[in-house]
Amino acid sequence: MKRDHGGDLDTAIQQYGGTHADWIDLSTGINRQPYPVPAITPAAWTALPAASATAKLVATARTAYRTQGAVLPLAGAQAAIQSIPLLSKPGRAKIMSPTYNEHAAALRALGWQVEDAATAQATAGADLAVIVNPNNPDGRYHDPKSLLALLPKAGRLVVDESFADPYPELSLAPEAGREGLVVLRSFGKFYGLAGMRLGFALGCDADIAALSQVAGPWPVCGPALEIGAAALADTGWARTTIARLMSEIDRMDRMAGLAGWRVAGGTCLFRLYDTPNAEAARAKLATRHIWSRIFPYSDRWVRLGMPGTEAEWARLGAALLEA
Amino acid sequence: MKRDHGGDLDTAIQQYGGTHADWIDLSTGINRQPYPVPAITPAAWTALPAASATAKLVATARTAYRTQGAVLPLAGAQAAIQSIPLLSKPGRAKIMSPTYNEHAAALRALGWQVEDAATAQATAGADLAVIVNPNNPDGRYHDPKSLLALLPKAGRLVVDESFADPYPELSLAPEAGREGLVVLRSFGKFYGLAGMRLGFALGCDADIAALSQVAGPWPVCGPALEIGAAALADTGWARTTIARLMSEIDRMDRMAGLAGWRVAGGTCLFRLYDTPNAEAARAKLATRHIWSRIFPYSDRWVRLGMPGTEAEWARLGAALLEA
Repeated sequence: MKRDHGGDLDTAIQQYGGTHADWIDLSTGINRQPYPVPAITPAAWTALPAASATAKLVATARTAYRTQGAVLPLAGAQAAIQSIPLLSKPGRAKIMSPTYNEHAAALRALGWQVEDAATAQATAGADLAVIVNPNNPDGRYHDPKSLLALLPKAGRLVVDESFADPYPELSLAPEAGREGLVVLRSFGKFYGLAGMRLGFALGCDADIAALSQVAGPWPVCGPALEIGAAALADTGWARTTIARLMSEIDRMDRMAGLAGWRVAGGTCLFRLYDTPNAEAARAKLATRHIWSRIFPYSDRWVRLGMPGTEAEWARLGAALLEA
Repeated sequence: MKRDHGGDLDTAIQQYGGTHADWIDLSTGINRQPYPVPAITPAAWTALPAASATAKLVATARTAYRTQGAVLPLAGAQAAIQSIPLLSKPGRAKIMSPTYNEHAAALRALGWQVEDAATAQATAGADLAVIVNPNNPDGRYHDPKSLLALLPKAGRLVVDESFADPYPELSLAPEAGREGLVVLRSFGKFYGLAGMRLGFALGCDADIAALSQVAGPWPVCGPALEIGAAALADTGWARTTIARLMSEIDRMDRMAGLAGWRVAGGTCLFRLYDTPNAEAARAKLATRHIWSRIFPYSDRWVRLGMPGTEAEWARLGAALLEA
């Protein structure tokens, strides 16, 4: 089954022309001012990823995410989403919805019965509860204590923190290690390096050992181990980037407001707008080679990632204001 | 469960000292004269891997492997090995043994009953038959017709061609697409870029769709898509590399012979030697910071990958001749 995703510039090009270089891809929440890729050792490419390189990344991630739990690097948070359904026999899963569609898809593909839950609290009673915090695409967020209160009410609680880097106060990572709790972190979104494929599962020893068994011995490429460790240790870059992204929310929302779009939610990595017609809104931007995200379950919502350069801001502003 | 592998230089360093740079790692069959990593586009790091980049790699792989079957790029042949057990309900698997230990481990972890088969023919009757061709570590090989004759005798036949690049005449890839046949290819070994994590599953549409479902939308990092496509299209490099590796077999075997080791098998990417004492043989090389592979099931076998530079050949020769 083919699922729709942001980042599908090939689709945009098929419909509206241009080349990859012509487009500003705002259809994802990937930071467009990426962490500068440092020099990579030749061995990162040539040798099987060394245990010591993985250990270094894990140690750095534990500090960055402020966790004492077990940490497993994987080829993106997506890889964790793919293997979570194998942690126990298929049962009944409840997912706070709407949200990132891969959770339900991966669970269903491996035999789980999946129900939407309108709120975090409504996931109670499931064999597996999934809550994305902050949520994509609407930005709904939960304080960690309220999520922790849900832990005894679910067979397993998966908290997907793919967009939590700018919001450390929301994170349940410091509680990872508790039985039944699995926290997912994405590297590529906040650090703007989604092509690198790096993410993490945080949890108790037994769950992380089981996920590691499913992932096999070398799930992450050597360059990602090195770049990830360098980036996660660079607290100055993270601080500066969070401040910049936070400061851009207002600018973005005002630009969208001038086009008649109302804020429906979001984070500092993406904004969700309520528009009169999502298809028309996307088409309007697409004719100017700016790609946005709409959703099969809403005919009004448009999600936009933050532009990168000032030139991209100018193009987005002009496109929003044009007829 | 921790499985032993080649490429575990950290273990070597713990026991025998030195740094990664001091060691010649011959404990794997990874070519030590790697394909030169070409320039990578910034988008390969920053954007989610594009469908067009994957399609380009798949088209190149189909030509390189001379197959009309469906082709799925994965994060190493290992990733395919991890997901093969999910292609059908667990049953009885037979693996031509001894061989790469991850096949049995991955199958057992997902509930399969696994038996060793002494020959390829002895895999007949299994729900899942696994044959590595040419085999690691002993280099046993099978002509494609004899393997094809086994196809109707197994529920599914997995042929792992991780070391087949120098032996295109052995490959069943041209037959991939037949129902029940899955062919695995490794990229990292012959091209010397094991850290990049790239491999392929070739098969019929239904099996490849199922493996793709398990792998999720972006299993391979962006740089690997680009580098893989460039390398697999470079038939000149492949030809030169095969000729070099083939020409080195005799040199290697003579050097080992002078140390009193007898050829027990191998390919042009690794050689297997029968020695009086595998532990002692490994220790002898390890004190000179050359790492080799021994096996839990043999107290005589030592496997050596081919040295890369002339300096590495000289060091290996000296180490083999010393007391």
